[in-house]
Parts: sequence; structure tokens; C-alpha cells
Amino acid sequence: MSSKPILVIGGGPAGLEAVRGIADLGYQAILIEKADFLGGMPISADYAALTPDMRSPEEAMGEMIVAITDNPSIDIRLSTTVVGSKGDAPNMEVTVKNAGGEEILEVGSVIVATGFKHFDPGKETQMYGYYEFEDVITLVDAEKMLKADEFARPSTGEAPKTVCFIQCVGSRDRQIGNQWCSKVCCGIACKQAIEVKEAAPDARVFVFYIDMRTYGFWEDEIYWKAQEDYNVNFIRGIVTEVTKRGDTLVVKGEDTTMGRPMEVAMDVVILSVGMEPSDGTVEMADTFELPLEPHGYIETTGGALNTVETTVPGVFVVGAAAGPADLEDSVSMGGSAVMKACSFIRKSELQPA
Amino acid sequence: MSSKPILVIGGGPAGLEAVRGIADLGYQAILIEKADFLGGMPISADYAALTPDMRSPEEAMGEMIVAITDNPSIDIRLSTTVVGSKGDAPNMEVTVKNAGGEEILEVGSVIVATGFKHFDPGKETQMYGYYEFEDVITLVDAEKMLKADEFARPSTGEAPKTVCFIQCVGSRDRQIGNQWCSKVCCGIACKQAIEVKEAAPDARVFVFYIDMRTYGFWEDEIYWKAQEDYNVNFIRGIVTEVTKRGDTLVVKGEDTTMGRPMEVAMDVVILSVGMEPSDGTVEMADTFELPLEPHGYIETTGGALNTVETTVPGVFVVGAAAGPADLEDSVSMGGSAVMKACSFIRKSELQPA
Repeated sequence: MSSKPILVIGGGPAGLEAVRGIADLGYQAILIEKADFLGGMPISADYAALTPDMRSPEEAMGEMIVAITDNPSIDIRLSTTVVGSKGDAPNMEVTVKNAGGEEILEVGSVIVATGFKHFDPGKETQMYGYYEFEDVITLVDAEKMLKADEFARPSTGEAPKTVCFIQCVGSRDRQIGNQWCSKVCCGIACKQAIEVKEAAPDARVFVFYIDMRTYGFWEDEIYWKAQEDYNVNFIRGIVTEVTKRGDTLVVKGEDTTMGRPMEVAMDVVILSVGMEPSDGTVEMADTFELPLEPHGYIETTGGALNTVETTVPGVFVVGAAAGPADLEDSVSMGGSAVMKACSFIRKSELQPA
Repeated sequence: MSSKPILVIGGGPAGLEAVRGIADLGYQAILIEKADFLGGMPISADYAALTPDMRSPEEAMGEMIVAITDNPSIDIRLSTTVVGSKGDAPNMEVTVKNAGGEEILEVGSVIVATGFKHFDPGKETQMYGYYEFEDVITLVDAEKMLKADEFARPSTGEAPKTVCFIQCVGSRDRQIGNQWCSKVCCGIACKQAIEVKEAAPDARVFVFYIDMRTYGFWEDEIYWKAQEDYNVNFIRGIVTEVTKRGDTLVVKGEDTTMGRPMEVAMDVVILSVGMEPSDGTVEMADTFELPLEPHGYIETTGGALNTVETTVPGVFVVGAAAGPADLEDSVSMGGSAVMKACSFIRKSELQPA
């Protein structure tokens, strides 16, 4: 008898890792992805390079995708969404929908890998002028430009002479309701600052930050590297406003190290937008009746010692659907959820209902 | 035919998670622990409470230990060390040694979970007076005192009126050769600052830091909590020296936010010592011929997308043996390594040599 399959929802790094792992252990996997391609945010958002190794997302995600392709244990459904669920694991009936209509899948366990969305800086009462000034962009916009090898000042198409990053846009901010630190934006800003200096070597590049959270090996691998090898300037400061004077952006705030007001002209301002639970994450929480933790992500049980188990037996969560996560977190959680979901299936077969 | 067992070396959080997962998937595990008890650093170093949930380590580790006890698939060897290895996975002969002598174990795969050691502040040319002044202690010493419900000024046994933490002792420091950020010390200092305020409510508590790296949910769960609910004072500053004037410690440095020299009297100074690879980690790297990455931890392969695989097939590394790691990292990596080690065993049986 073949085991009931494990349903993985979301084809980003955490989901891809989970699907491969399930098959490697001899279990059956069904992967549901709403887009018509796999790879998740690194592909859909056109990331230029992954942090911190600066690998090509196409190459890195490509390897993960090849590893799950043409495998009889893996059923991949693109352009498909989950629209309903009935019953409890290991006997769940999950309804999926695509252009061909609806279908009910019998599955034994579910791994939710629906990830995050980027914070929309319009929410922050436009204090940084994202929807007002062409030369104010986000980390996500910058990734696309860097990937296309076209990093330039949007309003002129020319190489910028001055570029700054503003950290913690949509993170660590009680006023907008996002009290968490998004974990990866400091590392990504370091990585992009290096890429900007490679694209525009004459540009002066600044990072305005509250705390540089380049934990673990990111400290010297990207933060020190940006400072020492690329002359990126890191300035501890609070930016209160981005305005415009003539053709140039003006960044106003306080340099909290020097203890003085700061007003600097910039050709390009990059907003380091943080993570929020994706729409898919909120929808799947609703579909599978998964409680959200106080920040709005899917709640896990067991504190620090259980990173992937939800309060619903047989339903697991991986990656940024459970909270801000870097790639390492997502991949480790993907593997851990495979262990738990396959164990769950195995135990249910040893002790049939 | 029963599979060859997977050898897990180290009975801390990552190792315990791995052993339970192996058995849950129907494979055989042997756990080697050099101490005569399980639980790893949270138990051996007498942690007062885990970060960030403030759970009792005995309770939390106790649950993990119960989950692997009296399981016919798990062979636990305490007071035992690994002293040699021959052959390649899945056909390895690993020599272990205990009071009864040496024994050769035939194993199919190995998971190294040998963890970290706390930085010894004597290394830092004693600039913080750890070996000179009784009232200068480390995070580790403070855990023991908090656990015993005896947090006091060591030289007098009385409740301290002023307590400070000095962050990044043995981390982010090129001079001593530890260029990494140890990832957890900011969170642990927040947790301990809260515990100190609970133990000595009248004490004024300060944390001197470079960057507060309370990433993800630690931001509001422990960092804001320490500030808002416990009135802990966080001061961005560089401490250059701890000296003594009369009976009182004097902390000298610069308050980098106020931009002025700082000289403050303290009853107790707590050094937030970072992580280094444990002796066991270095020994196992040698025994299994695992290359070290540039910081001296066991190297993993595949960058951000492969957190547990070493360059030696069938040998995996989890938790702080691979670099600074929090509990979540360790547990997720433990689960991920189970998936990979069991898959490795399964594949080797499908394609016998």
C-alpha cells in the first residue's frame, strides 16, 4: 500500500526543500503553486543574487527544481490554489482549483510554505516619498535593476553619484503595527550596497540604520566586506523625511552617532522594506484553521524547540509563513517539516484508526 | 534486514532532536554523549531559562530526553567519546571509548552535534578584568546565579544597585580573531536583564551594545519588553576598560549616541561572552576529516540552501558546530539532518554497493 501523499503548498525555497525531502524518504508529495513557475520569491521578485553567497537565483532555485522534476513520487501542480479542506490529518480532503476546475485531493499531511510579502511603503503615510518621487525605490525595485544590469537613477537613466539605503521600513515600527525585525533586510542592504558599488563604482553609498543585524557569519562576510572592500558608509541615524529640492532628493533626519541633524542630498534612495505574512499565508491559516501568533504569522507550538509544528495535528509550517526567515531558516525548516510530516504519516499507518 | 544505525554525536538540543527524528522515521540511532547526562549546554552550564520563551531548561530538555528514552530504535551511550573512524558512509566503523574500554560501531551515517563553547574573557588580555575583579562575571556565571535564585554582588553577597552588561565580548572582534557575531548574546542579555530586574527590582540595569541584534520576534518579545516593562537602559557605547575605585567597579568607554566619554560606577558587570567551536567540534572535524570554514566551525556545502551537509558524504553537522546558532536554528537543523541522513541510508540500501 502506498502512503497518502503529503501536500506542500508553495514552491519557494522552503517548499522545494520539503518536496525533495519527502520523495527522498520514500513518501509521496503533491506540490501546489499558484504561479505558473517554481522558485518562489527569489524568482518572482527577480532577485539579482541571493544573500549572502551572491549566487544566481536561477541557478540556485534551478538546482532545487531539477531535483524534484520527473520524479514519480512528486506531483507538481502549477497555476493552482488551495480553496478548501475537510477532515483531519491523516485523512484530509483538500480542494484545489485551477483553470480546469476544482479537484479534491486525499492527503495525509500538509506543509504550508506560502512565505511572505514585501512591505508596501505606501502604508507608511508616504513619509519617504515612494509614491511621490521616481528616484525613491525599494530593495525589491533595486534587485530588478541590478539583475537587469541597469542600475541607474530612474529619473535620468544616468549612473547615480549618491545612493542611500534607509533600513527598517515597515519593520520595528509600532505605529504601522509591524513590531518585528524582518531579519534579512540588513544583510540584503549590505549585499545590494556591494552590487551598487560594482555597478556604479564612483557612487558614494550610504546605509542609514538603527542596528545593523548582520548576525553570525554575515558580520564579516557581507557587513565588513561592504565597509572595507567597497567603501560603503554605514551611518547610524533616524531618517524622518525624504523631500526634493530641484532635481535632487533630500534625506532629512538625525545622525544619532554624531548627535546632530542630518540633511543630505541623494540621487537614489532605496527603502529597505521588511516582511509581512503573504496573502497566501493568511488564506491558508484560514483554510486549515491555523491560529496566527500575535504578529500575524502562522503560530507554531512548543516555543524555540519546535519550529514547524502548528497547533493542528499533521499540519506544518515552514519558512517565512511562520515569521521572518532567511534562506537558511527556510531550508532547515523545510527539512525539519519533512521529518515531522513523514513521521506523522508513518505513525498513522502503524496505528490505523 | 534492519538498516545500519545513524550515529549522533552530542546530546544537546540539536542532537536530541536528531535522535528522536531518526527513530520516528523508523531508522536506528546511536547517541554518543561525553558527559554522564543528556541536555547539552542548557543543562551543563546551568542555564536559568531558555531564550526567548524563558522555559525551564530542565523541563524543556527533559521533554526531549523522555522522547528518546526506552526506545528500542535508540541506543544511548553516556560518558562516551568518539576516538576514531574508518571507511566511508554508508559503511563506517567508528571507534567509541568509555570507562569499559573501546568498541567499534558499524554505522551508516553520522550527525555531528558537538556544539559550541563559551568565549573565555581571559583571552581578551583581561581588559574587562574578569580574572581580576570578583564582581565582573559572564553571562554564564549570571545564568547559574539566576538559576539558584541567588543573584547578588559576588564580593558582598548583597543585592546590587547597579548592573551592566557589556555586549560582544569575544565576538565581532578582529583583534582576538573572532570575526563573527555570536547571534544569541543580545537576546540572552535582554532575557537576563529582565531576570535581574525580577531578582533585584531596585537595581538600575544597563546594556552597553554596538548593535542590538534581537532579530525576528525577539525585537518586541524580549528587547522592547526589557525596555518598557522592566526599565532596562540600553546604551549604545564602546566599553574600553573596567577598573575599580574603592569597592566599586568603574566602566569606562564612550557613549556613542551622546558622543561623549562615559565613566559609570557599577556593582556588577556581566560580560556577554560569545560562541566558539567546542573542543568536541574541533576533534570531530579531525576524526571525520571535515574541513573547517574560515571562522573555524565545521564547513557546510551548498551555501544558504544546504545548512547541514558537510563536504564528506553521509556526514552531517547540526547546531552550533556549524556556526553561531540559536535554539530554533539547532532544532530545525537537527530535523533537517534527520531527513538527509535517513535519505542517505535509504538510497544506499536501494543501490547496494
